[in-house]
Amino acid sequence: MKIDFFVSAFDKMDRKTKPPGSLGVLEGVAVRLAEIQQTLEPKLARKRICVYAGSHGVTSEGVSAYPGEVTGQMVLNFLSGGAAVNVLARHGGIDIQVVDAGVDAEWPGKLLDRPDFYFRSVRRGTSNFYREPAMDQSECEQALEVGREQVRAALNDGIDLLGIGEMGIGNTTAASTLLVALCGLKPEEAVGRGTGIDDISLEHKIQVVAGSFAKYFPLRLEPAGLYWLGVVGGFEIAAMTGTLLEAAKARLPVVVDGFIATAAAAAAFSIDNKSREICFFSHRSGEKGHGKALEALQVEPLLDLRMRLGEGTGVALAMPILDAAAKILCEMASFESAGVSGEIDRAN
Amino acid sequence: MKIDFFVSAFDKMDRKTKPPGSLGVLEGVAVRLAEIQQTLEPKLARKRICVYAGSHGVTSEGVSAYPGEVTGQMVLNFLSGGAAVNVLARHGGIDIQVVDAGVDAEWPGKLLDRPDFYFRSVRRGTSNFYREPAMDQSECEQALEVGREQVRAALNDGIDLLGIGEMGIGNTTAASTLLVALCGLKPEEAVGRGTGIDDISLEHKIQVVAGSFAKYFPLRLEPAGLYWLGVVGGFEIAAMTGTLLEAAKARLPVVVDGFIATAAAAAAFSIDNKSREICFFSHRSGEKGHGKALEALQVEPLLDLRMRLGEGTGVALAMPILDAAAKILCEMASFESAGVSGEIDRAN
Repeated sequence: MKIDFFVSAFDKMDRKTKPPGSLGVLEGVAVRLAEIQQTLEPKLARKRICVYAGSHGVTSEGVSAYPGEVTGQMVLNFLSGGAAVNVLARHGGIDIQVVDAGVDAEWPGKLLDRPDFYFRSVRRGTSNFYREPAMDQSECEQALEVGREQVRAALNDGIDLLGIGEMGIGNTTAASTLLVALCGLKPEEAVGRGTGIDDISLEHKIQVVAGSFAKYFPLRLEPAGLYWLGVVGGFEIAAMTGTLLEAAKARLPVVVDGFIATAAAAAAFSIDNKSREICFFSHRSGEKGHGKALEALQVEPLLDLRMRLGEGTGVALAMPILDAAAKILCEMASFESAGVSGEIDRAN
Repeated sequence: MKIDFFVSAFDKMDRKTKPPGSLGVLEGVAVRLAEIQQTLEPKLARKRICVYAGSHGVTSEGVSAYPGEVTGQMVLNFLSGGAAVNVLARHGGIDIQVVDAGVDAEWPGKLLDRPDFYFRSVRRGTSNFYREPAMDQSECEQALEVGREQVRAALNDGIDLLGIGEMGIGNTTAASTLLVALCGLKPEEAVGRGTGIDDISLEHKIQVVAGSFAKYFPLRLEPAGLYWLGVVGGFEIAAMTGTLLEAAKARLPVVVDGFIATAAAAAAFSIDNKSREICFFSHRSGEKGHGKALEALQVEPLLDLRMRLGEGTGVALAMPILDAAAKILCEMASFESAGVSGEIDRAN
C-alpha cells in the first residue's frame, strides 16, 4: 500500500502541542519536505549552496554600475571566504561550491585543484544578446549539464538540501529579459537598478531588455524556457536551470535565491513543470521585478528582507528555516505524549 | 573623543564587497547592534529566550478555545523539551529559561530545583478583568520585577541577546485590550481568534475587550503603560515589560516575539521610550491585530511566516538572522581587502 506522505505528514503536524495551523508557513514547508523525501521524518542535516558564475557580453551596453571584471574578482572572493554568502553560509552550517560556468578570467593553477571549485567554463562570457544570441544551442545544453552535474555531486556527498546562487555582472539584464519572455512581465516592470545604476542607465537597460525581447520573439520555439535561455540567458543562469531539472528527477529539495535564480526557475518550470515540486523560494528580493515574477510563478518566498545581492545570500538565510520546519515535524511533542489538553468541545 | 558607532558602523558596512544597501534589512540591524553594544564588532554568540507563563482570570468569560489548565501543562512541556519553542531554540543554539510569573498550577518539588525554571508566581492567575482589575499595583510592580530579574541573570551568564516569549491561555484577550488602550486600535481590529475560537466566541471576545477598555478608561493615570498593565494585563505580560525596561538600562538587545509580547513592548515604550532602542521585533504574527499594532508602534518585524503560536517561536527563528547581520559587519571582506573593483564612475 502506497503511503500518501502529504496527508500523513499533515495529520502528524496536527497532533503537535499547538493550535492547528499556528506555525503558519513552517507547517506547509514541513509537509512538502515529507512528501519530497517520502518520509514522516524529513531531515535537512547537510546543506550546500552552488554559486554559479558567468560573464555577460551585454555588459558592453553599459547596463551595470560595476565593470565586468568584478565577476572574476568575486569568484576569488568566494574562494577566500570573504563574500557575504561565505559569511552567511558559515553561520548556517552550509557548504559552498563555486562553479565557473563561463567567466571571463584567467585562474591561477592552484585554484583548479580545490575541491570546492569547479572549472566548467562553457566560454569566457556570453555574446552581447542585444546584438546576437547569447549562446548557441550546444553551449546552452553544455551549461545545463554544468548544473546537472552539481546535483549528482551533491547526492554523492549526502547533501539533503541544495541551494542555487549566482554571480555575474550584467545578469539582471539577462534575467529581466527572461522574465519578460517567460512570465509576461512588461520590460519596465522587469527591469530594476541591479547593482545600483542611475536613471539614464536604467532607461537604457529597459530599452536593451525590450529590444532584445522584440528581436528574438518571432523565433520562439518550444519549450520556451530552453529557447530563451539560449538567446538571452547566461551560462550561470542555464546552469541553475540544469540543477533544478536534475534535482526534480532525484527528488532533491532546492532553495532558489533571488531575482536571477528565479529567472532560472521560470526557465526550468517551462522545460519541466515537475521541477516546481522540489523548489523553495528563499526570499523576495529588493530588485524591482522580483515580486511580480514570484506572483507570475505563483510561488511564495520565505523571507522579505529587501536584500538584492544574489550570490545565494537569500538561500543561506532561508535554509535554517526549512531545517527548523523539518525538525518541528520530527521532534515536537504531541498532545498525547505531552499530556496537554486539547480544544474545548463547545458543542457539549 | 566619543565615537559615533552608528555612523562608523554604517561607513564600515559600505566598504563591504557588495553594492551599497544590497543586504537590505541586515545592514540596518547590524548598524543598530553596533550602536547598542558600542562596538564595530558586535557579537551575539550567547542567546537566551525567557518564556514567561501566567494564568488569566478572564478565561472564565469563554474567550479561548483551550481550557485554562493548558497553561500549566505547557510549562511542563517546555521543561521536558517537547514544545515548538524548544525545538526551534535547540535548532538555533538558544537557551531557554521558563518563568512562572503567576500560573494556576501545583509544581512537583523536583521542578523547583531546576536551573532553567524560575518559580516567581505573583499569584495563581490574574482576576477576571472584565469584572475587576486583573491585579493591584503592588502585584504589577512585583511582576515587572520578575522580568527585570531575568535581565540581571542574563548579564550574569554572559548572554548577548535576550528574547521574550510567553504562554498564558486567555492572554490574547489581555493583549488586545492593552493594544486598544495604548496604541489606539479599535476592539474589532485588535481582537483575533487566538488559539482558534469560533465566530460566536470571537464576537463575545470583542465585547469583553471593548467593555473592559470602557470600564477602566475613566481611571486612566500616567504612565498609561503601567496603569493598563495593572487593570487588564497579565503577570507574564508585565514580566516581559519589566525585561524590556531593565534591558534598556543595561543596553542589552532584546527580541520581541509576537502579538502578546508586542503588547508588553507597547507598555514598556509608554513607561520608558528608551526601551525602543534595544528592541528588535521578530515577526508579524498571523494573529489579527498584530500588523496594526506594529504599525502603530512604527516598528518593522524581521519575519512574516503567518505564525501565531507565541512561546517565543518567532524569536527563535529571528535570532539567527540578527546574529547573521552582526557577522556580516565583523567578517565580510571590504573592496580593498578583497581586491574587488568598485562602482564605475560614470561622470568620467
